[in-house]
Amino acid sequence: MVISDQLVQQIKEKESPIVVGLDPQYEQLPNLIREISEKKRGETLEAAGDAIFEFNKGLIDAIYDIVPAVKPQIAYYEQYGIPGLIAYQKTCRYAKEKGLIVIGDIKRSDIGSTSEAYSRAHIGKTAVGSCNFEAFPADIVTINPYMGTDTIRPFLEKIEAYEKGIFVLVKTSNPSSNEIQDQCIRKIPLYEKVAECVYGWGKDSIGSSGYSAVGAVVGATYPEEMKKLRLLMPNAYFLVPGYGAQGATASDIVHAFNKDGLGAVVNSSRGIIYAYQKSAQTYQEAARQSTLLMKKDIMEALRKHK
Amino acid sequence: MVISDQLVQQIKEKESPIVVGLDPQYEQLPNLIREISEKKRGETLEAAGDAIFEFNKGLIDAIYDIVPAVKPQIAYYEQYGIPGLIAYQKTCRYAKEKGLIVIGDIKRSDIGSTSEAYSRAHIGKTAVGSCNFEAFPADIVTINPYMGTDTIRPFLEKIEAYEKGIFVLVKTSNPSSNEIQDQCIRKIPLYEKVAECVYGWGKDSIGSSGYSAVGAVVGATYPEEMKKLRLLMPNAYFLVPGYGAQGATASDIVHAFNKDGLGAVVNSSRGIIYAYQKSAQTYQEAARQSTLLMKKDIMEALRKHK
Repeated sequence: MVISDQLVQQIKEKESPIVVGLDPQYEQLPNLIREISEKKRGETLEAAGDAIFEFNKGLIDAIYDIVPAVKPQIAYYEQYGIPGLIAYQKTCRYAKEKGLIVIGDIKRSDIGSTSEAYSRAHIGKTAVGSCNFEAFPADIVTINPYMGTDTIRPFLEKIEAYEKGIFVLVKTSNPSSNEIQDQCIRKIPLYEKVAECVYGWGKDSIGSSGYSAVGAVVGATYPEEMKKLRLLMPNAYFLVPGYGAQGATASDIVHAFNKDGLGAVVNSSRGIIYAYQKSAQTYQEAARQSTLLMKKDIMEALRKHK
Repeated sequence: MVISDQLVQQIKEKESPIVVGLDPQYEQLPNLIREISEKKRGETLEAAGDAIFEFNKGLIDAIYDIVPAVKPQIAYYEQYGIPGLIAYQKTCRYAKEKGLIVIGDIKRSDIGSTSEAYSRAHIGKTAVGSCNFEAFPADIVTINPYMGTDTIRPFLEKIEAYEKGIFVLVKTSNPSSNEIQDQCIRKIPLYEKVAECVYGWGKDSIGSSGYSAVGAVVGATYPEEMKKLRLLMPNAYFLVPGYGAQGATASDIVHAFNKDGLGAVVNSSRGIIYAYQKSAQTYQEAARQSTLLMKKDIMEALRKHK
């Protein structure tokens, strides 16, 4: 099944267009998890890796039945070196076991031959002799479009071969995204030009839901831009960061959705995974409760918006 | 010492503005290396990782005295999963032991907090309790500018704290780099706008050589654009891909250099590391010989150009 159809199915079943971002920072993990890990392995990257996977496992157990997908941000794992990336890998696998769609937030891109290697690494397979391996098993990955179509092509091939997907950075949520992305070309901002590319790249992978396996990252922190982008990419699923810790609200986010109530998944990372720091609950209870609150917040805003 | 001064020193000592790109593809490695590795570990990612490090070690031994730097492209390691990234790490460490500057070709970027994690991972340090670790030990890394200044700032902080450097993608060597990078804003192409940013980002890290720790990636496949970019970023070192396998010649490349004969390092990957496939020599002899030929080719073109 086309990945966008899998996503739509899960969103409908769970009535939840929410993605939990798994961005683990060791010193923010619950004391108990860190203590157990350090007791075994000392103050090492291995201890951090173990603790991170333990933490993520607990989070996934707490929210797998109320969200369609999780989004591990690979930078937070890379900083812990090899043990960190082992935790990334184990997190992806565990989330998949629990039936979740895994969005690897990797923001890769490079010239054709190198993009081929990245696409094999994250949504494809790598051959060693006659055997094939999944190096890092994501279902969908985020992609940076700065280098153009030939950086995207290898990913499009993997989408077709393995029922995978991509979200292309169109308009990102960070404050300085305007510096490059908002530059105007004959009065049209660059991000709209990228949106046109995304529309083209996605034409051949539209599922029965009407949505393509080629989606777009559109930051919730720019609601006016979002309205325009929704019209320019009717078939693209939007991955929407910026809710919560980055400042966007549910009323900013409604413009990411189409009239069918579909077309977007909203991510929250820190607001969910570190909710326990402002609560008397365990980190798992706090994560579940804040996910449910976010779901309620967004579903209400969507109903009002209809 | 500022990293650009270290680079200039090595280039002068070795009379060689050449970077060898370490982009290992398992099936292209010499039969003997693969056979030994597979005998021990079967057709596994571990076998690929071992073989890749063995291959790279041989390459480094063959060229460390005639080039200032090597550039492992991390995508080629990521595709072999954890064993691939162990090979990346060991390659970086071995090259540094041999006195080489390591350019990690990672092309990362993300929102501020995530870029902080990437910068820690590749040119900084990661804390676990009271201990600090170098996750992936590069000296300089490549960075994608699509998300703007706040994605660059954490890297600039690491440059200052740890004497590291970055090369920002300005005009890449691939055929479709025009799609985004050549879009004109009030008659000025986007890549020139990025060049202005690079100039600004690099102002605070200029060494005694006159060059900044913030450099630029400028593809050799676009010589006309290169001429303009050289004038726009006088203090930036250029990392120049595209020579050899991608089609650019020494006469295309001369425009990347300043009048002092400095200001650029030219990369070749496939043309050097797989030179043995078109030769009766060992892969080490062939790599050394093709590096020396490339050096001669470029130094002659530079003399003519003066």
